[in-house]
Amino acid sequence: MKPSLPKGTRDFGTTVTTRRQYIINTIRQVLGLYGYAPIETPALENLSTLTGKYGDEGDKLIFKVLNSGDFTEGVDMALDARKLAPLLAEKALRYDLTVPFARFVVMNRNDITFPFKRYQVQPVWRADRPQKGRYREFYQFDADVVGSNSLQYEAEFFQIFAQVFKALGVGVTIKYNNRKILNGIAEAAGADDKFTELVTIIDKLDKIGAEKMNEELSTLGLSNNNITKLNTLLKATGSNTERLAAIKSAIFPSYEGLKGVEELNTIHTYLTDSGFDDSVAEFDPALARGLSYYTGTIYEVKAHNVQIGSICGGGRYDNLTGLFGLEGVSGVGISFGIDRIYDVLDELKLFPQQTANAPIVLLTNMGEAEGRFAFALCTRLRNEGIAAECYPEPKKLNKQFEYAEKLGIPYLAIIGNDEMQTGMFTLKNIVTGSQNKHSFTDLVGALKA
Amino acid sequence: MKPSLPKGTRDFGTTVTTRRQYIINTIRQVLGLYGYAPIETPALENLSTLTGKYGDEGDKLIFKVLNSGDFTEGVDMALDARKLAPLLAEKALRYDLTVPFARFVVMNRNDITFPFKRYQVQPVWRADRPQKGRYREFYQFDADVVGSNSLQYEAEFFQIFAQVFKALGVGVTIKYNNRKILNGIAEAAGADDKFTELVTIIDKLDKIGAEKMNEELSTLGLSNNNITKLNTLLKATGSNTERLAAIKSAIFPSYEGLKGVEELNTIHTYLTDSGFDDSVAEFDPALARGLSYYTGTIYEVKAHNVQIGSICGGGRYDNLTGLFGLEGVSGVGISFGIDRIYDVLDELKLFPQQTANAPIVLLTNMGEAEGRFAFALCTRLRNEGIAAECYPEPKKLNKQFEYAEKLGIPYLAIIGNDEMQTGMFTLKNIVTGSQNKHSFTDLVGALKA
Repeated sequence: MKPSLPKGTRDFGTTVTTRRQYIINTIRQVLGLYGYAPIETPALENLSTLTGKYGDEGDKLIFKVLNSGDFTEGVDMALDARKLAPLLAEKALRYDLTVPFARFVVMNRNDITFPFKRYQVQPVWRADRPQKGRYREFYQFDADVVGSNSLQYEAEFFQIFAQVFKALGVGVTIKYNNRKILNGIAEAAGADDKFTELVTIIDKLDKIGAEKMNEELSTLGLSNNNITKLNTLLKATGSNTERLAAIKSAIFPSYEGLKGVEELNTIHTYLTDSGFDDSVAEFDPALARGLSYYTGTIYEVKAHNVQIGSICGGGRYDNLTGLFGLEGVSGVGISFGIDRIYDVLDELKLFPQQTANAPIVLLTNMGEAEGRFAFALCTRLRNEGIAAECYPEPKKLNKQFEYAEKLGIPYLAIIGNDEMQTGMFTLKNIVTGSQNKHSFTDLVGALKA
Repeated sequence: MKPSLPKGTRDFGTTVTTRRQYIINTIRQVLGLYGYAPIETPALENLSTLTGKYGDEGDKLIFKVLNSGDFTEGVDMALDARKLAPLLAEKALRYDLTVPFARFVVMNRNDITFPFKRYQVQPVWRADRPQKGRYREFYQFDADVVGSNSLQYEAEFFQIFAQVFKALGVGVTIKYNNRKILNGIAEAAGADDKFTELVTIIDKLDKIGAEKMNEELSTLGLSNNNITKLNTLLKATGSNTERLAAIKSAIFPSYEGLKGVEELNTIHTYLTDSGFDDSVAEFDPALARGLSYYTGTIYEVKAHNVQIGSICGGGRYDNLTGLFGLEGVSGVGISFGIDRIYDVLDELKLFPQQTANAPIVLLTNMGEAEGRFAFALCTRLRNEGIAAECYPEPKKLNKQFEYAEKLGIPYLAIIGNDEMQTGMFTLKNIVTGSQNKHSFTDLVGALKA
């Protein structure tokens, strides 16, 4: 039998897994500084918990888990697949981290201290058609704070994004907007009754350009005058504060719109007071983040010097836990696109050397006695905190050399009869080819350097 | 709708998740020193990859994932559940990490450099009846090296066990034996034709005691003479080396048995040469590790001062990848029982303080201006690498105090008008109640101490 993987799923080898962990650990560390702590929810959820939360299309993409035992018992097996599915499968696989988080908050509301800051990094599953960059099993990394309306949390996420990508060495722009400003823009363009359609078109500005956008706006029924107004408004120039001021006068006197402006102004103040580098952030009044459940500030992070979509997103929502009957819990959250961040670091060659995850030294095996000696020496190196490996068999030296090279081990310590007698060990740098004799103490020093 | 979880699954809150991560990271770090690197495999496997690998009982416990779309199409829905299941569900959830690892090695054989040292820590799913300590979704943590017969790897696992539990602060005994010695014992007891039954009985010695074991051996058909011989043999006293020597003469001239003794002797030499503390290990000729696929050395780790089963296990196997047509790849592997290790640390109160995962300081919010000032100060603390949090609203001080207490934040920094003017900040230790005024520099020093 020739084994294979289900389509849309992936094995991750040692290098890829180590590098993914490097990304995840970097984000974890930054989030920890900001008081975010991890939770985990099970991969298996009740199907009823997930159904109806992702729209009709989403419902179809939920992986359902067949009931155990005699799953046909008491079931009319002649029913069509759509009606049959929930009878044969009471459980399903996590589709995102948002709905399980809402469920978690509702189920644990009496034990949680609000505001509650949590992050969660776990795989999710979607029965999507697999294609380049789209998988059926992939990690999500979400961080949310729920139970407070304070805009300081919005400001913190700017800082978190900036700090994470600084740590990873990636240049980024944090684009942001506010859904309430989009309401103001719709009002100003005389299209508040076509909010959804309008926002969908504006959101595409980046991709389709102004001309194509204007055509679509015209088809939607906007007057030429309003289309011109909208274009001026979306193209405001100057600093973030200046552009926000321009938007403010353009959408006056929209109540919702001005509230959005005020929110962003407060966030600007938090950031300015705390020395935030404003050049990392870009207020973009056309940003909409699709037709999601966001109600306030929204974010999108783009990486520099690489052609790839947004690598993070997020925003403020007003009623996440309302899905499960707990009203009035406002929150704000962000999501890191681990797969895309990986691709960015890979393309820009930003993974640090240590993510190769190989030991630093391979001790040779030149025979039975030498091998045992090498094993004991290897133990002493490990006791000094040095990742070391000893070759298991007395093969030819070039074989052992090749093994070290393939694994990316940078040093070879040759342990022969001479070395055993003198206690001076030959250390060879595999990259440069240079070699030197060292006492054990010097060996430790050289390998730790 | 009142949400719930599928039975046998669990949510993990912030404290539990942080503590589990502490355990996992500790093991990861030790394994890294020994040249082990992580891989990950998908949760979804083809059902055909898993079927037949875990026995008939195991097959029933595999969670199957319903096909997407119209899963009834072309399927005779009148079939009984057993025949229907593989037609409705081509995919299944990972049941352990061993079979996916074997599949991984076979599929990637041309890219892997052997000996291949990998570890893997991921959840697995079993449709077992849930009960205390038994879940339907739980983590496994496996480390294996495949592609070498060298006994140095067996010796390394003793060192790894000892180092991991030293780092975690848990006293343990590593019990070990060799399956070949069990063959020798069966021969010596004149029961080599009843190997499986004999081993099953011996393995229970710890639990049922000698009297009950002897009854069962008698029922199996062993002569009184052979039962006496077996009892003497299993109760050999002295050091590990002495007991092994006693076993050696007792099972002479069993070819297999003596081979097992030689293997353990070689491992003893590796360990002695490298200064291993022999008192951590206990050679136990009655240890059998069930009727598993092990063929050489086997391990089991027991924690001291706590009533709980074994917390780790493992051993040498000769033909793991044979399942998928790749013969002759010997390996040795161990498994850490994360749930049980958690329980041990919890019961013995061994989790370090930092696993509470709370920020170290909460900055108060005494009003709008004070709150903004606190936010900027909080940013500066985080820039110094200090996990800090600022309260989001100007509530009464005792509310904010309570918040810090509930989250386990040890310090409160009170930021009022006075502090803003003087730049001297009042730091209150929540546990002791003591409070002092500090400049920013001193504040950083106090919080880093």
